[in-house]
Amino acid sequence: MTQTAFQDTYSEWGSQCYGCGRLNEHGLQIKSYWDESGQGTICRFRPRPEHTAAPGFAYGGLIASLIDCHSTGSAAASAYRAAGREMGSRPELRFVTASLHVDYLRPTPLDAELEIRGTIEEIKGRKVIVASTLSAQGQLCARGRVVAVQAPDSMKAD
Amino acid sequence: MTQTAFQDTYSEWGSQCYGCGRLNEHGLQIKSYWDESGQGTICRFRPRPEHTAAPGFAYGGLIASLIDCHSTGSAAASAYRAAGREMGSRPELRFVTASLHVDYLRPTPLDAELEIRGTIEEIKGRKVIVASTLSAQGQLCARGRVVAVQAPDSMKAD
Repeated sequence: MTQTAFQDTYSEWGSQCYGCGRLNEHGLQIKSYWDESGQGTICRFRPRPEHTAAPGFAYGGLIASLIDCHSTGSAAASAYRAAGREMGSRPELRFVTASLHVDYLRPTPLDAELEIRGTIEEIKGRKVIVASTLSAQGQLCARGRVVAVQAPDSMKAD
Repeated sequence: MTQTAFQDTYSEWGSQCYGCGRLNEHGLQIKSYWDESGQGTICRFRPRPEHTAAPGFAYGGLIASLIDCHSTGSAAASAYRAAGREMGSRPELRFVTASLHVDYLRPTPLDAELEIRGTIEEIKGRKVIVASTLSAQGQLCARGRVVAVQAPDSMKAD
């Protein structure tokens, strides 16, 4: 894809996150984009061998983390779009998670590329709701729903 | 505490998990116990520096992971107790997550010991529901609810 990943537009302050911060060298560094339709969002991620649940299957906490960060990234992208602003322009629209729900539908294979797709359900004030699916090898493995809110000033250094 | 941690009774097969497996050298290796009352469960965990959300705060995916694994461990402990069996006795009662919900109530400090307390809400057949709180420095930071089910045979190697 030739798009810039949502996470690559985050400020230095917003790029320390273990799940999605490009500056967190120990983290997952996930990358999210608008999908083919331009309406939904997509992220692909290949688990590391240590991201095990039971042998051969991916860890549920990893799946929750991917859904979490893909959703906050999708929330930011949709909020910039709704405001008619270029993503990454300042003041930054950076989102945190108010609530996270994941339904694990079947064991997720570990040795596979995971595909997370997000749908923007609602944008209202400082809040964005993102529904998502996580699939592997063409099978739906988990569903997620995140209520994301703009990061409170109390979290910001700048 | 002089109790054996729930996770230290898991079989080798059940001890590979990134969140709670004692045999996963890259993982979090959380340890859960019955609490002072003997009715609830408790886990204490200190985040690593890389478990950052924004600078100074703990990553929501880590919080979800702690709630997840503490809850499946609490589910196993309560299922053994309900069956009048010693924890870890075979056949193993090992639980996986059917659904995970986390409400993030306030930013969680990174440089602090996190305390997760679980309450067994329901034990029914192969399903256990565990409610939990996550606190730091005496403040409630997140609430969780996990529906745990006994691991399906399709996940098991033995």
